[in-house]
Amino acid sequence: MKVLVINAGSSSLKYQLIDMTNETVLAKGLCDRIGIDNSFIKQSRGSEEAVVLNKELKNHKDAIEAVISALTDDKIGVIKNMSEISAVGHRIVHGGEKFNSSVVIDDSVMAAVRECIDIAPLHNPPNIIGIEACQQIMPNIPMVAVFDTTFHSSMPDYAYLYALPYELYEKYGIRKYGFHGTSHKYVAERAAAMLGKPLSELKIITCHLGNGSSICAVNKGKSVDTSMGFTPLQGLAMGTRSGTIDPEVVTFLMEKENLDVKGISNLLNKKSGVLGISGVSSDFRDLHAAADSGNSRAELAIEIFSYGVKKFIGEYIAVMNGVDAIVFTAGVGENNSVVRNMIVSDMDFFGVKIDEEKNKLRGQEIDISTADASVRTLVIPTNEELAIAKETVKFIK
Amino acid sequence: MKVLVINAGSSSLKYQLIDMTNETVLAKGLCDRIGIDNSFIKQSRGSEEAVVLNKELKNHKDAIEAVISALTDDKIGVIKNMSEISAVGHRIVHGGEKFNSSVVIDDSVMAAVRECIDIAPLHNPPNIIGIEACQQIMPNIPMVAVFDTTFHSSMPDYAYLYALPYELYEKYGIRKYGFHGTSHKYVAERAAAMLGKPLSELKIITCHLGNGSSICAVNKGKSVDTSMGFTPLQGLAMGTRSGTIDPEVVTFLMEKENLDVKGISNLLNKKSGVLGISGVSSDFRDLHAAADSGNSRAELAIEIFSYGVKKFIGEYIAVMNGVDAIVFTAGVGENNSVVRNMIVSDMDFFGVKIDEEKNKLRGQEIDISTADASVRTLVIPTNEELAIAKETVKFIK
Repeated sequence: MKVLVINAGSSSLKYQLIDMTNETVLAKGLCDRIGIDNSFIKQSRGSEEAVVLNKELKNHKDAIEAVISALTDDKIGVIKNMSEISAVGHRIVHGGEKFNSSVVIDDSVMAAVRECIDIAPLHNPPNIIGIEACQQIMPNIPMVAVFDTTFHSSMPDYAYLYALPYELYEKYGIRKYGFHGTSHKYVAERAAAMLGKPLSELKIITCHLGNGSSICAVNKGKSVDTSMGFTPLQGLAMGTRSGTIDPEVVTFLMEKENLDVKGISNLLNKKSGVLGISGVSSDFRDLHAAADSGNSRAELAIEIFSYGVKKFIGEYIAVMNGVDAIVFTAGVGENNSVVRNMIVSDMDFFGVKIDEEKNKLRGQEIDISTADASVRTLVIPTNEELAIAKETVKFIK
Repeated sequence: MKVLVINAGSSSLKYQLIDMTNETVLAKGLCDRIGIDNSFIKQSRGSEEAVVLNKELKNHKDAIEAVISALTDDKIGVIKNMSEISAVGHRIVHGGEKFNSSVVIDDSVMAAVRECIDIAPLHNPPNIIGIEACQQIMPNIPMVAVFDTTFHSSMPDYAYLYALPYELYEKYGIRKYGFHGTSHKYVAERAAAMLGKPLSELKIITCHLGNGSSICAVNKGKSVDTSMGFTPLQGLAMGTRSGTIDPEVVTFLMEKENLDVKGISNLLNKKSGVLGISGVSSDFRDLHAAADSGNSRAELAIEIFSYGVKKFIGEYIAVMNGVDAIVFTAGVGENNSVVRNMIVSDMDFFGVKIDEEKNKLRGQEIDISTADASVRTLVIPTNEELAIAKETVKFIK
């Protein structure tokens, strides 16, 4: 059984075709600059080098046609024709309170996803366009919507509600939703497998640290709290996002810098985070290079980021009254041993201790704890596409 | 040596005259409705009942004159004349980055306090008016400014900086300052005395829980992090303040509810917190009464508040890599055994365990931990006025 996984953005569309019999990626690729000039599709098979084809992609329908064409191509393709695709799994950012599981896409689902646009104006519209394009090109192939938010739908009300007038929650759905759910769930399940224990008996803190970052308290397999909020802006300092700040700073800056709602939102989402502090980059490789050359603000940005993760780990240990494993995943979590070390150093009060040699390894599932640590620290590469494909298989059955 | 402590608000002025030879309060009082109709002064001596005098208080100068008049009154007074007052200690909310200790007030100090108005537009102006009134009435008595912020000036940069463009910190001083410093410092010192250990060897988490609430990590006697931020809005859900929310909620609500900067600030500061959630009251006594009668939103408000405190305790244990004592103080912290119990229940992973019988006692310094708890949980009534008076004595010497 082959599943096509689609992650549609406003001007890009990422995809993977996964053979679920052995969970291998047959091909993966990217359509970029959709609706802009110089659009192209890039595809690679297995470990082969990617092939780039310049192609006019006026819209997402063009992009999906290009994907099918590339997947079935005589030279660079991996399947003979479209009918080999058993199902399509779509990543959807925001399911609001309407979805607490993945769901087979039909008209009523589409209507509900559209209703979530109000609280996810940046993310859901391109996801919807991606689904519609697939429906046009592959009308007879079942499709499943997998949401970033559903894993967090198990949070209790005292964790997800803000201390705002309750009517605003009822009227607009303003509450904490949380994101990266597919990733948090996937690595929590892998952690249980690594530890050889059922997920239902474990307290796990999953740290998804990438360009966007969030942390999740996974108690007995369920998300009980997470660092992102109503939108993916809350929580940790990120690549370009501020994370949590004093709400009064928002209004202070609007007045002082003469910014409107869009202007302040742009500043907090695009110009802040480790980029804003360092003035150098949102990429940790650049930050480390700058810090190594004596740039103290680049060093400070790394410190602020790591300190924030450390604080959330403490928070979630309090929430769960303990922790069995701390998991690092995503770009920074999987690859940045310096940041991992800064986060978990001086955590022996909790029973957290890592082996510096093991911590240097990368790109694999590994327990980097010392033998005497009572809490395991794990590095687990995330695989959101595989997780979406698995969900897809589960729901079309 | 007698010290007059002044806490001036925009239309009220609280005072205490303290005899520092034995740290007893000779008299305390309140001028209220200054500049409004029906103004009055209320004063009590020791444990005597308060006397209320209706008096026209057109401005803060009138109020200070009334204070001196009441203190030296033949019937209700406690001193013969003003010259018995050796010094005046003024509570100032915001010292910005200009003050990292209390300071004897002179022209340059006043100029610096005025410069902080920009970042504390609501709080510093009445404080300044209070000082000016005292200077007019008591020109020859030395005065000391004691700031809510200075105790937190020991925070490291990675704790106090927001992940915003660094230039905004340089340009406007946008950073975490923290508040309630006088209280956090006072109870941390009392905690060390209760534990019979030097403060310099202790890791203490102080929870100042009142109508405004903040938590502080006190490592070796120094504040290393605190929950309030640039303003007293950040952090915990409070009586009427939202505490931390997704910054994007600020702009979302401005658009949806058609609010300007003042409107949203008013909503977040005056209509949110436990009042906003419950729709009942900002007072925990009312919330408990409502919850006991089956009001689920009042119960929810109490849960959200307590859960927030629990999370900060975990955060600060992570920050300090351990904790020797958790201290509860201020109105809710000192008197609300239900909330204390909700906060520290299920914290045995940290070694926190309280004795339910001891927890019921109120109004005294008490260790409410069980004998086998490795972390002490203490209730310590705060005394900001005494702390200000002590600072005053220390600095005029």
